[in-house]
Amino acid sequence: MSKLDPIEYVDAPPNVRAVFDDIKKVRNVPDVNNFWKYLAHDPATLQRTWESVKEVMAAGSLSPLMKEMIYVAVSVTNGCGYCIASHSAAARKAGMTEAMFGELMAVVGMANETNRLANGYRVPIDAAFDQ
Amino acid sequence: MSKLDPIEYVDAPPNVRAVFDDIKKVRNVPDVNNFWKYLAHDPATLQRTWESVKEVMAAGSLSPLMKEMIYVAVSVTNGCGYCIASHSAAARKAGMTEAMFGELMAVVGMANETNRLANGYRVPIDAAFDQ
Amino acid sequence: MSKLDPIEYVDAPPNVRAVFDDIKKVRNVPDVNNFWKYLAHDPATLQRTWESVKEVMAAGSLSPLMKEMIYVAVSVTNGCGYCIASHSAAARKAGMTEAMFGELMAVVGMANETNRLANGYRVPIDAAFDQ
Amino acid sequence: MSKLDPIEYVDAPPNVRAVFDDIKKVRNVPDVNNFWKYLAHDPATLQRTWESVKEVMAAGSLSPLMKEMIYVAVSVTNGCGYCIASHSAAARKAGMTEAMFGELMAVVGMANETNRLANGYRVPIDAAFDQ
Amino acid sequence: MSKLDPIEYVDAPPNVRAVFDDIKKVRNVPDVNNFWKYLAHDPATLQRTWESVKEVMAAGSLSPLMKEMIYVAVSVTNGCGYCIASHSAAARKAGMTEAMFGELMAVVGMANETNRLANGYRVPIDAAFDQ
Amino acid sequence: MSKLDPIEYVDAPPNVRAVFDDIKKVRNVPDVNNFWKYLAHDPATLQRTWESVKEVMAAGSLSPLMKEMIYVAVSVTNGCGYCIASHSAAARKAGMTEAMFGELMAVVGMANETNRLANGYRVPIDAAFDQ
Repeated sequence: MSKLDPIEYVDAPPNVRAVFDDIKKVRNVPDVNNFWKYLAHDPATLQRTWESVKEVMAAGSLSPLMKEMIYVAVSVTNGCGYCIASHSAAARKAGMTEAMFGELMAVVGMANETNRLANGYRVPIDAAFDQ
Repeated sequence: MSKLDPIEYVDAPPNVRAVFDDIKKVRNVPDVNNFWKYLAHDPATLQRTWESVKEVMAAGSLSPLMKEMIYVAVSVTNGCGYCIASHSAAARKAGMTEAMFGELMAVVGMANETNRLANGYRVPIDAAFDQ
Repeated sequence: MSKLDPIEYVDAPPNVRAVFDDIKKVRNVPDVNNFWKYLAHDPATLQRTWESVKEVMAAGSLSPLMKEMIYVAVSVTNGCGYCIASHSAAARKAGMTEAMFGELMAVVGMANETNRLANGYRVPIDAAFDQ
Repeated sequence: MSKLDPIEYVDAPPNVRAVFDDIKKVRNVPDVNNFWKYLAHDPATLQRTWESVKEVMAAGSLSPLMKEMIYVAVSVTNGCGYCIASHSAAARKAGMTEAMFGELMAVVGMANETNRLANGYRVPIDAAFDQ
Repeated sequence: MSKLDPIEYVDAPPNVRAVFDDIKKVRNVPDVNNFWKYLAHDPATLQRTWESVKEVMAAGSLSPLMKEMIYVAVSVTNGCGYCIASHSAAARKAGMTEAMFGELMAVVGMANETNRLANGYRVPIDAAFDQ
Repeated sequence: MSKLDPIEYVDAPPNVRAVFDDIKKVRNVPDVNNFWKYLAHDPATLQRTWESVKEVMAAGSLSPLMKEMIYVAVSVTNGCGYCIASHSAAARKAGMTEAMFGELMAVVGMANETNRLANGYRVPIDAAFDQ
């Protein structure tokens, strides 16, 4: 078998279209991202993932903007090119300014640096952290 | 040579004490964390790292609370036990409630999942992300 | 010095050709993958890596199909684009159906998510796991 | 706020007990793992994660044993100590012999090695992989 | 907002040009790399990062060549395509021969393999390491 | 089955003792590290890994000290606690001073930071790197 192609709405079976419809409605977009078009090859994963994302990314104690910025932070740390592009766009749409993006990148960079310094110096956890 | 020990304030040379003093003043704490006590073995790295962290974590377009939560997100993604404990404590001190922590964890978990789904399905970047 | 080019069979020295011949024989293919053509710049690494891969990926308590799927799981986790493409193709050649691929991706996604939840909640190892 | 404690069944609210009951029934165990006791601090995440794990890890085109071994492969790659212990125990319970474990580790080790060799040598994806 | 473009010297504000000038002087190059042209969108991060890199990468107990090879080792481990290309070029410029590169790759590969074997076999730290 | 125990020399079968003897001879030590005692559960992996490590870590274009420092760099990046302890001790034994260690950590920290900045800013590879 070979590399998969995206499944477009017009070619999708009813269970996939149902998920695409919900994504488009919740996100107020005319078409879904490539991510969902590829995940559609496994309708169970498509549905489970969308339901989870919808629940997790909804406004709560953290705003959708904050949640998208956290998503960018993780994607940048992992080096997922698709996700960096996708969630940076989503964060901008949710209100992330270029100043916020710059500060976000600065924190992600520092955190990835100090994580390794803590590893390399074998720093023991301070008792004070758990009081 | 063997495993390093932390350098306490009382045993520290003047250049290290100067950094410790600044950390304690800026963070309003009576003593610095173990991280700084170990980094003190390399005073140049101690100073450079503290100056960078001080600059990067200051209030800006993103609040200190938001920045600490991003730091937690990165540390959890990388699995740095020290940093998870340290920055979770710092985030709580900056105002992170347990509800916020739960939502932060949920987003970090989902992002690490969908990053890999995007990898495995070899999803191409949508042109729309860059318009 | 500049970016390396692949070393094709026709241009390869005898020690490299010997490894290429063995790869082609064991895998029943007319030519080796790009991976081996680049590794050929270091014949010692080429030989050591091929000998290890040949030994590790042979049928044993786990079938070659299972082993290729584990290889995909690791490559997806690490985000290695070349390896994801290469080993997904190898897994399909060894018998992985699209249904298997979908389930494999689902497990890899969940595992990357729950790994971070375990990190973030600082879950201690149950004594029962080691009995 | 401080480090979280696990939530035991006897202290859990009804919505958490409902999830614990389902886990114990599906897995045929007298008590749930620490992972679930910590996740219980966020009942929404507890439920969503359990429902996903239950669906993803059920027997399908891949057996539960195969799925647990993939879970171990990912956990070892990421270095999650809790998950390595937890899923190695689960894999053994599902039928993984020590011979299988050894081969699993060998493949995970090799894959993490060749992923980096492919990165470092900047190997381009063979057209043949997508045919 | 959309994908960022690089900021060229001719279009850069004075504070950015000052950093570009220093990079060009220290590295003895006619123009800076793309990395700095993109970082220039956040002049504070541009300056802080360059000052840190300048300090960290200067000749010390470790030579610049050794430092560039360590940089390559980390970049290959993380799979950062830009950094692999950039620092491999810098290492070659600093004196890395193809034989050195091959050995560097071999060590990075082995280390990434044995790191996971140590994880998977849950190896406890020998007391002897800390004496 | 349960958590594995280390296999000591006195309890080891002949094929494992043969490998242990070679390790002790090559490294000039009275006993092997825990890593090898655990890997001994899979004699094929024990032998293959030792043969590879012996070959890869021998003096070549890079010295054993340089190779051990690269090993530390990778282990710190990956957060492998056992490997950080093990290879830091080996590097010190091979001649790494505390000044070298400090500079090594500084480079590893910076590289992990700039790797993510390059990811987040989606920096394209300069053509000049490949000329």
